[in-house]
Amino acid sequence: MDKITIVKVGGNVLQNKKVTAQFLKDFASMDGLKILVHGGGNEATELSRKLGIETQMIDGLRVTCSDQLDVTTMVYAGLINKQIVAQLQAIEVNAIGLTGADGGTIQSTKRASQPIDYGWVGDVTSVNADRIICLISAGFVPVFNAITVDEKGQLLNTNADTIAAELAKALSAKFEVSLLYCFEKNGLLQSMNDDDSVISQIHLEAISTLVDNGVISDGMLPKTKNCVEALEANVSHVRIGGPTTIWSPENCTTIKK
Amino acid sequence: MDKITIVKVGGNVLQNKKVTAQFLKDFASMDGLKILVHGGGNEATELSRKLGIETQMIDGLRVTCSDQLDVTTMVYAGLINKQIVAQLQAIEVNAIGLTGADGGTIQSTKRASQPIDYGWVGDVTSVNADRIICLISAGFVPVFNAITVDEKGQLLNTNADTIAAELAKALSAKFEVSLLYCFEKNGLLQSMNDDDSVISQIHLEAISTLVDNGVISDGMLPKTKNCVEALEANVSHVRIGGPTTIWSPENCTTIKK
Repeated sequence: MDKITIVKVGGNVLQNKKVTAQFLKDFASMDGLKILVHGGGNEATELSRKLGIETQMIDGLRVTCSDQLDVTTMVYAGLINKQIVAQLQAIEVNAIGLTGADGGTIQSTKRASQPIDYGWVGDVTSVNADRIICLISAGFVPVFNAITVDEKGQLLNTNADTIAAELAKALSAKFEVSLLYCFEKNGLLQSMNDDDSVISQIHLEAISTLVDNGVISDGMLPKTKNCVEALEANVSHVRIGGPTTIWSPENCTTIKK
Repeated sequence: MDKITIVKVGGNVLQNKKVTAQFLKDFASMDGLKILVHGGGNEATELSRKLGIETQMIDGLRVTCSDQLDVTTMVYAGLINKQIVAQLQAIEVNAIGLTGADGGTIQSTKRASQPIDYGWVGDVTSVNADRIICLISAGFVPVFNAITVDEKGQLLNTNADTIAAELAKALSAKFEVSLLYCFEKNGLLQSMNDDDSVISQIHLEAISTLVDNGVISDGMLPKTKNCVEALEANVSHVRIGGPTTIWSPENCTTIKK
C-alpha cells in the first residue's frame, strides 16, 4: 500500500512570513505523496475589519453571512492559497490549489440553522477520492483551502481541520495515511503554559481521560475530535505539533489507534 | 487532430448574474474539449474602492501596486474563479480553477518598469502545455483567471485576453484550436454605436485596414493584437462576439488566416 501524508497548517502559523517559508521548505523536503490543507482565519478577520463587516465566532467557528462568505472565498481560495502554491512551485513542488469545488473534489451541505445559525457554513458530505488520486498520480500536489460547495453550486465555508480529516478518511481505503496537524504549539501539552511539556505518544483510548483531566480543552477539543474520527476510520496515525516539531515523531505528539 | 475551444469571457459580461448563468450553460453545452479564461476587472476596482486603494488604469491595464496585487488575487483567483467553478460543477462540467501558478501551468515575468511602471504586472513567458493536456485528458475543464507567477514564486497580474491567446498558441501544436473572445458587444462592429452592424468574417490581412479606418480602435486594439498573434501562431480561427452571439459563427465576427 502506498503511503500518503496529509498536512494541515493553521492560520496562526502562516501569519509569519519566515515561519511560512521554512514550513513550506520542510513540507517540500518530505518524501512521498502529500497533500497540504491550510486555514487562514486571521487574515479573513482582518479583511472583514477593513471592509466594515462584523466577524462573529461561536465555538471557534465563523458565522458566515454572504459578505463573510465572499471574504473567506477571497482570502482562503484566492490570496493565501495562491501565495502558498506560488511559493511551493518556486521550490520545485508541483502544487495545485483547490477548493472542494475544483474538480468536484469535496462536496458539502449547508449546516442546519438550528440550534445555531452559522450561515454559509458547510459540513463535508463526500470526498471524491478518485479525482484526487487522479491529480496525485499525475504528479500534482494538492493544496486545499477551507471552501467547499454543495450540489447546487453554492460555495460554503468549512472547517479546515475537518477537511484534512475527511481527506485522510477518504484516502485511507487506498493509502496508508499519516495525518499531521501543524498549529502554533509544539504538540499536545501536559501543562498548557509549558511549551516543553509535549506529550509524546497517546493511544486513542487515552484521549477521553485527557479530556476529563482538562489537558485537552477549548480549541483542542474539535481538533481532537477530528483526530479520533480519522483514526477510527483507519488512518494510520495522527501527529499534532508546531511548524518546527511536526516533522519528527519524537518532537511532537503522535496519536495511534 | 483533436479539437479544443478556448473561450475568454470579459468582466463586463460577468457582472450580470443571469447573463453569467446563461453564458455558463452555453459553455457547458459546447461539445468537445474546452478551456475557459475569465477577467473581472470591475469587481477588483470595486473592492479596491471599498478598501480605499486607488485604482489607476493606463491603456486599459491596471497599475498593480502590492495592495492591488492582493486585491486582484483575491477577486480573480478567489471570488470570481470559485463562483464560476462552483456553477459549472453544478451543471455537470468538471471545472478546475487555475492561476498560472497552479500546476506550474503559466509562467510570466514582471514587466520592465520603463517606459511605464505597471507594478506587479506580468507578461507570459511560457505555457506548460503538457501539464494542461494532462488535466484535460483526465477529464478536467480548466478555468483560468488572470493571475500568473514568475520563477521565484512572485504572483503577477496578467491580461486575461493575452492568457487566452497564449494558451491557444501553446495548444495549437497538438490541437486544432478555436479561440473565442466574449465581451459586451455582439462582435466587431462596422459602426461603433450600431449593435447590429456586426462584421461577419475578416481575413487576417484585412485587420490593418480596419485599424486604419478606425473600425478597430481603443480597447479593441490590444484584443485584436492578441487575435493576430494567435492566428499567426497557427490557431485555426478566432471569434469575437457577445454572450449570446459568440456561439454561432453567423452571429458574431470570425477572423481567419
